[in-house]
Amino acid sequence: MFREVNGKLHVEGVNIEEIAESGTPVYITSKAMLENNIESYRAAFPDARMLYAVKANNNISIMRIISKKGFGADVFSDGELYLALLAGFKPEYILFNGNSKSRKEIEYGVRTGVKFSVDSVDELHAISEVAKEENKEVKIAFRINPDISPDTHPKIATGLKKSKFGIPWEEVIDAYKTAVKLPGVKPVGIHCHIGSQITDLSPFVEALNRIVDVAKKVEKLGVELEFLDLGGGLGIDYHAEGVPAPSELANKLMPTFRERIAELKSEPQLWLEPGRSIIGNTTILLTRVNSVKKAYKNFVAVDAGFNLLIRPAMYNAYHRVSVANKMGQKEEEEYTVVGPICESGDILAENRKLPKVERGDLIAVFDAGAYGFVMSSQYNGRPRCAEILVDRDRWFVIREWESFCDVVGKQIVVDF
Amino acid sequence: MFREVNGKLHVEGVNIEEIAESGTPVYITSKAMLENNIESYRAAFPDARMLYAVKANNNISIMRIISKKGFGADVFSDGELYLALLAGFKPEYILFNGNSKSRKEIEYGVRTGVKFSVDSVDELHAISEVAKEENKEVKIAFRINPDISPDTHPKIATGLKKSKFGIPWEEVIDAYKTAVKLPGVKPVGIHCHIGSQITDLSPFVEALNRIVDVAKKVEKLGVELEFLDLGGGLGIDYHAEGVPAPSELANKLMPTFRERIAELKSEPQLWLEPGRSIIGNTTILLTRVNSVKKAYKNFVAVDAGFNLLIRPAMYNAYHRVSVANKMGQKEEEEYTVVGPICESGDILAENRKLPKVERGDLIAVFDAGAYGFVMSSQYNGRPRCAEILVDRDRWFVIREWESFCDVVGKQIVVDF
Repeated sequence: MFREVNGKLHVEGVNIEEIAESGTPVYITSKAMLENNIESYRAAFPDARMLYAVKANNNISIMRIISKKGFGADVFSDGELYLALLAGFKPEYILFNGNSKSRKEIEYGVRTGVKFSVDSVDELHAISEVAKEENKEVKIAFRINPDISPDTHPKIATGLKKSKFGIPWEEVIDAYKTAVKLPGVKPVGIHCHIGSQITDLSPFVEALNRIVDVAKKVEKLGVELEFLDLGGGLGIDYHAEGVPAPSELANKLMPTFRERIAELKSEPQLWLEPGRSIIGNTTILLTRVNSVKKAYKNFVAVDAGFNLLIRPAMYNAYHRVSVANKMGQKEEEEYTVVGPICESGDILAENRKLPKVERGDLIAVFDAGAYGFVMSSQYNGRPRCAEILVDRDRWFVIREWESFCDVVGKQIVVDF
Repeated sequence: MFREVNGKLHVEGVNIEEIAESGTPVYITSKAMLENNIESYRAAFPDARMLYAVKANNNISIMRIISKKGFGADVFSDGELYLALLAGFKPEYILFNGNSKSRKEIEYGVRTGVKFSVDSVDELHAISEVAKEENKEVKIAFRINPDISPDTHPKIATGLKKSKFGIPWEEVIDAYKTAVKLPGVKPVGIHCHIGSQITDLSPFVEALNRIVDVAKKVEKLGVELEFLDLGGGLGIDYHAEGVPAPSELANKLMPTFRERIAELKSEPQLWLEPGRSIIGNTTILLTRVNSVKKAYKNFVAVDAGFNLLIRPAMYNAYHRVSVANKMGQKEEEEYTVVGPICESGDILAENRKLPKVERGDLIAVFDAGAYGFVMSSQYNGRPRCAEILVDRDRWFVIREWESFCDVVGKQIVVDF
């Protein structure tokens, strides 16, 4: 919950100026908003299984709140699996996704007992080999490429025909045929994912129909389906224009799901993988103004750049911004908010009407909870920032600020 | 020096297969190539001062080789200053650049005795305040925006009129006037920078003329100029098509420099800030094939993605690739080399003719020394990779592989 109190932005009951005294930049998450988003999904999909997409935000304290509400996890690497286990997600509801899994990652996943989304027949063989060695039976789904075009940024549309992900849906039956015969692997699901930040719901229905079409053929191979995983991708409201809620997705999806599932012999559960729509709007990036400059434009130079939030620079993404210590003041001038990184593309917000900005002011960048800190780097030698979780009128550091030592990192200095 | 020996790629005298046994992905740097690049600049510009652009690659072992050859350093943050000092660069030849310096960064720079490139009058006042408190006199240059358009990617063209960097050159005299009067700061230079990966040399001459025009006016304020800093930006040969060497830049630049410098009263030294052209071509990213898949395209899925080398995904940059354990074999098929990151844009190399690729093969991505590891992240929960320096037939780990613990990082787990 972000709101103004006496001209100052508050996260739940906490004035952001109080947090900023400990240091900036900093990510600040509202626990109440997170719980609200979780409940929206639970209420909208009482019979489905939600797997939280760890890639959106892998902070353990945050993920513990999600895992305790019965969510599973969608992980994309051994590192994410490790974090998901620390956060308390149960292995049987963890799906190990990924188009490029190393032998070491497969071993870790097999030993842990998670399910696998398999991206290719090549990978299927690798999993089968490991499973035999470990004397395990691994439950798998194939990721199908549904050849569906959602209206989103091409870099995050993942179900296009030419995408690197999955097996073309027309060819996937052959893969299931191979899997049925191979030792160590047991097909129990079908997986697809059409992309991220999707606000038009029709492609989800299209993907669901595709997946049920495939399911009917897969069942004929004697496969009993435990789940159909539609992936994630519901967008959030970056522009404050209104986007569909989980309940609207459910209203759109569930009638088709119930109708089409009746065509199957088994009774697979619907799985979804929300990430952005769980965590995106719960978090701001708070950054302090280092200098203001009138050049060709009015530039506000702040202490966070694309080292900490790469979405504007990489995807030309839009994030709302406010002067957090001057809330409600008259918006006087147009400013471009830029970071400290040595690239012209390091712009957080372009041409925004804001109250008069001065050195020392605080800028809040909204909707920064998803694909924010997880994509951060130490580019330009900058230590990464802290993360803070606010619970009503109390706040907790859930990730400390890095120091210069962390920028040195794992270096071993050799002197020639 | 990268060459083929019996079908295997060698870095100087070391077979990359030997290094890959310790783990992949890994950055591998040739010391001989680095020294060769350093010598090219020293030979081309015997009277100029080279400041290595730390942002390109801040590995301390690598930077020590550079600092020992008499280079100074161009740093863009307090973290880079810290690393540059560890690498042995002398403070009087360190220029603290940056469009957004925090109070803490300014304090660190002032105490260390480095020179400052000042980006705005707002920043000038901040430096003056700190200098007075510290009882120091800080030598400064202003960064001018020369309004020059080199032919490079817009995100890394830094001297365009609309760029966030510097003070418009027509307005900078007022800034120098202010600086002359302010306590604690002493203007001694002029700084500009037109961009990165520039292969047409004319814009450098254009920028030089601009900076001397400004210098003549600055001298009239009673300023004695110690240096004119033209920045960096010389491109490297990503496409193996031939690009200008430092000697060609010198041949193009020095006649104009000598001629125009005669118009000045003081005798400023030419400063340059090469980064990419020092370190870019010395390094490969070596990555192992996890799986090969025929879908809409032939996909080769490797264990390094834009978590480790973001240039292709972010700037659509081209890097040559080879199958490092199958050098010289007939190129049979067209492949697209993709990383393990959960985004469709995670493509390292698109539609390349390569020998038949199989699981376990090694792919070398060339020219990965600049803006490679420094821009790396732990996105998708992936530990970052190692860096290795090869010296003839010996190799040294100069950065260890990260572990899962490094992915947990500075987290403090709070359980609600």
